Amino acid sequence: MATYIEPRVLKGFRDFLPAAEIARRTLIERIEFSFRSYGFLPIDTPALEYAEILLGKGGGETEKQIYRFIDNGGRDVALRFDLTVPFARFVAEHRADLPLPFKRYHIAKVWRGENTQRGRYREFTQCDFDIVGSDSAAADFEILLMMRNTFQTIGAGDVTIRVNHRGLFNRFLATLGVAGRSVEILRTVDKLGKIGRDATLIQLAALLDDDKAARILSFIEAKGGFEETLACMTEAAGGECPESERLRLLYCFMLDTGSAASFTLDPSITRGLDYYTGVVYETFLNEVPDIGSVCSGGRYDNLAALYSKERVSGVGSSIGLDRLIAALETLGKLGDKNAYARLGIACIEEKDAGHYQTLATRFRDAGISCEVFLESNKLAKQFMLAEKKGIKWLLIPADDANGAFSLRNIETRETIDKCSSIEEAIKMLLR
Amino acid sequence: MATYIEPRVLKGFRDFLPAAEIARRTLIERIEFSFRSYGFLPIDTPALEYAEILLGKGGGETEKQIYRFIDNGGRDVALRFDLTVPFARFVAEHRADLPLPFKRYHIAKVWRGENTQRGRYREFTQCDFDIVGSDSAAADFEILLMMRNTFQTIGAGDVTIRVNHRGLFNRFLATLGVAGRSVEILRTVDKLGKIGRDATLIQLAALLDDDKAARILSFIEAKGGFEETLACMTEAAGGECPESERLRLLYCFMLDTGSAASFTLDPSITRGLDYYTGVVYETFLNEVPDIGSVCSGGRYDNLAALYSKERVSGVGSSIGLDRLIAALETLGKLGDKNAYARLGIACIEEKDAGHYQTLATRFRDAGISCEVFLESNKLAKQFMLAEKKGIKWLLIPADDANGAFSLRNIETRETIDKCSSIEEAIKMLLR
Repeated sequence: MATYIEPRVLKGFRDFLPAAEIARRTLIERIEFSFRSYGFLPIDTPALEYAEILLGKGGGETEKQIYRFIDNGGRDVALRFDLTVPFARFVAEHRADLPLPFKRYHIAKVWRGENTQRGRYREFTQCDFDIVGSDSAAADFEILLMMRNTFQTIGAGDVTIRVNHRGLFNRFLATLGVAGRSVEILRTVDKLGKIGRDATLIQLAALLDDDKAARILSFIEAKGGFEETLACMTEAAGGECPESERLRLLYCFMLDTGSAASFTLDPSITRGLDYYTGVVYETFLNEVPDIGSVCSGGRYDNLAALYSKERVSGVGSSIGLDRLIAALETLGKLGDKNAYARLGIACIEEKDAGHYQTLATRFRDAGISCEVFLESNKLAKQFMLAEKKGIKWLLIPADDANGAFSLRNIETRETIDKCSSIEEAIKMLLR
Repeated sequence: MATYIEPRVLKGFRDFLPAAEIARRTLIERIEFSFRSYGFLPIDTPALEYAEILLGKGGGETEKQIYRFIDNGGRDVALRFDLTVPFARFVAEHRADLPLPFKRYHIAKVWRGENTQRGRYREFTQCDFDIVGSDSAAADFEILLMMRNTFQTIGAGDVTIRVNHRGLFNRFLATLGVAGRSVEILRTVDKLGKIGRDATLIQLAALLDDDKAARILSFIEAKGGFEETLACMTEAAGGECPESERLRLLYCFMLDTGSAASFTLDPSITRGLDYYTGVVYETFLNEVPDIGSVCSGGRYDNLAALYSKERVSGVGSSIGLDRLIAALETLGKLGDKNAYARLGIACIEEKDAGHYQTLATRFRDAGISCEVFLESNKLAKQFMLAEKKGIKWLLIPADDANGAFSLRNIETRETIDKCSSIEEAIKMLLR
C-alpha cells in the first residue's frame, strides 16, 4: 500500500484560495493606487537577513519569536519580523542613492513565531509607508492625511485618527519629576484601551506614588476638542514649547484641508515601540472602532542609528492588513468576487478549441476577461461549473465557426439566442 | 566611540530601489493583467512549510540547496524552493474546494542556497501558471497560447515557443530498446543547447552504444516545418499513436488561431524535471534568443502523487522573471520610470502645507499622481530635487491661496507663468 505525506501547512500559516486571494489583492491594489497618487515609491528588501542586522543589540521579546537559523554557509540568519528594521538598514546602506526627503511604501510578508491564539498568524502581510529625511510638520501631516484618504479610497469609510505627541507627554512627566521612568510609563499608558482605566491606575501606582499615578491618569483622560485638549496638555507640560507648537501647526493643516473632523488629540495614545520621539497616532474605523487600530505609527528621530552615524529622521505608519480585512469583511465591504472572468466560452467539441480561443481573444481585447471551458461536458454541467466559478455569462458557440451563438446569464438563467454580432455581445457585457 | 552594525544583505540577496522595483512591479502587473484576462485565478501559499512536504521522498540536488532548519517548536521546516511543490500540496489539500479544471497563477519569491555565480540569486521571483484537472489538448493549447500572447502584451515582442512531447520521445526510445534509460537520456538531451552537439553525442555514447547515440542525435536534430518534423518523429517512434495525434491537434489549434508562426516542433526540447509526461516547451524571445528560455513547462500526469491517492493531471508553465527583466533591459523595453508622480508641488512656506495638500488633492482626484514637496528650500534646489526624483512638472504656488501659480517643465526648463485655472493645468498634464 502506498503511503502519502499528509498535505498540511504549519500552524499559524495559511493558504489563500482564489476568493480570499482576490479580496487581498484587490485591497492591496487599492492601497497602492492611493500611495502612488501621493508620489510614494515602492521598494523591496530580502525576506532573509543577517540575524545581527534584524536583532540589533539584543532583541528581548523579538528574539524569542524570530525564525533564526544557521544557513548552509554557516551564517547566522533570520526571517524579517517587521518591515521597519530592514528599512532602517536599507536607508543606512543606500542613503547616497535616495533623494531626500524619501517617501516609500513596502507591502510584504513578515514572520513571527508567536503564540497563535487570538487570531494571530505566524506569517502575515505588513503595509508600511514612511517619509524619511524631513523633520517638518508638513511630513507629519502628509502621513496623517494619506492615512485618512487611503481608508476612504479603499471603501473603508470614515476614520478617526487619534494623535498625540510623545515629546509633549515627556515634558509633562518631567514636570512630575519622573522623566527617567518615561519608557515604563508610556508602555503602561499604552495598555489603557486593553486593560481599562482602573487596572492602568493600579499599574501606574505600582511604578510611582499614588498622587503622580492619579495625575498621569488625569492627563491622559483629557477629553475635548483638539484645541481645548491641546491647551490642557500644554499647561500640564509646563507651557508653550516646540512640541505644542507642532501639534498646533498640524491642527491648522487639518483645518486648511477640511479634514479636521477625522482627527482627535488623544493624550492616551503612546504606542508601545521605543523609537518614537514625536507625533504618534492610531486609526479607528468609525463603523467598527472596537476592532482596534488598523493603522498606527509616529515620528522617529534616528531610524538607522544602529547602522550609521548619519542621523535620518522620519515619520511613518503601518496598516495591519489582516485586521483591516477582518473589519471590511464584518462591514460587508470586502469584495466577494471569486472570478476575474466575466464570460465563459462553453466547449461543445474539443476539436474546436482553436475557434473558441479566437472568439475569446475578441472579448479579451475589448477588456472582458474570458475563460475558455476545456471539456466538452453536457451544457447543464457547464452551466453549473460557470456558477461554481462565479462567472456571470456563458457563451454557447454555434456548431460552425460562422453560425450564431447564444449567451446564457448564469445568475438569471436567461438565454439570449441567435446572437450573430460579437460587437453587440461586447457592448452588452460592458454595460 | 560608537560601533555600528555594517548595513549589508546576504550574498545572493538583493534590495530593490524604487526604479528597479517600479520596473518589476510594472512588469508583474502586466503579466497578471494578461493571466486574469484568461480567467486564471491567483492563489498564495506559505513561504515556510514542513521540510517533509517540500522534499518529498528524498530531495537529491534540492536537499543541498534548500534553506532548512528546526523552528522554535521543534518542527523540521524549510523555505519553498519553487512554487510547483507547494501547489501540488495545495491541490491535494483543497481539492474539494477547487472547481476543476482549475486555472491558477502564483507570483511569489522562492529561495535556493545556490552557487551565486553566473548571475544566479538565492532569492528570486517565480511566476507560475497551471491548469489542473484536465487531460485535454485544449488545456495544453491554452497554456501555449497564453504564453505567446502574454509576451506580446508585456511588450517583449514576438516569441518562438519550441514544443515537444515526452511521450513521443519515449516511444522512440522504446523502438531502440532503451526505454528504461529514459530519465538519463532525456537529461542528457536537455543539455544540448548548453554543451553543444558533439559533447551531447559523447555523453549519449557513454550511456548507450555508439549507433543508438547517433540515432538519438539524429532524432533530436530533425529540423523543418511542424508537420514535416512531426512526420519524421512519428515514423521514428513507430507510427501514429496518441502522442502524435496530440501534437497534430495542437498544430490545428495553432492554425485556427493564426498563431502557428510562433511555434516550432523541436524534438531536442526535453526539460530537466522528471514529472513531465506529455508536451514540454521552452520560449525564446525572437530579438534575444541567446539569453535562453524565458518561460518553460509541460504536462504532468499526477501532480499530487506524494500527498494523495487521487490523480490530478495538468499542464503548466513558469516565467523566469529575472531573466525576462534582464532581456527587456537589453532590448530597452523595460520601463525606466523612477517616479509615479507626474507633478510636484513646490514648498514656498511650510506653514502653507495644508494649502499645498488641498491643491495636490485636486490633481490626484483627476488621476494625476502628485508629490507635495515638504521643505521650503530655494526654488533652484527644488527644481533639482524634482529632476533627481524623475518628476516632470513642478507647480510653484502663489503666495496667497487664491493667487496665480506657475508650472515648470523640469525637462525643458520652461515655465508657464500666471496660471489661474487648475482645470486648465489638469488638462495640460493629462495631454
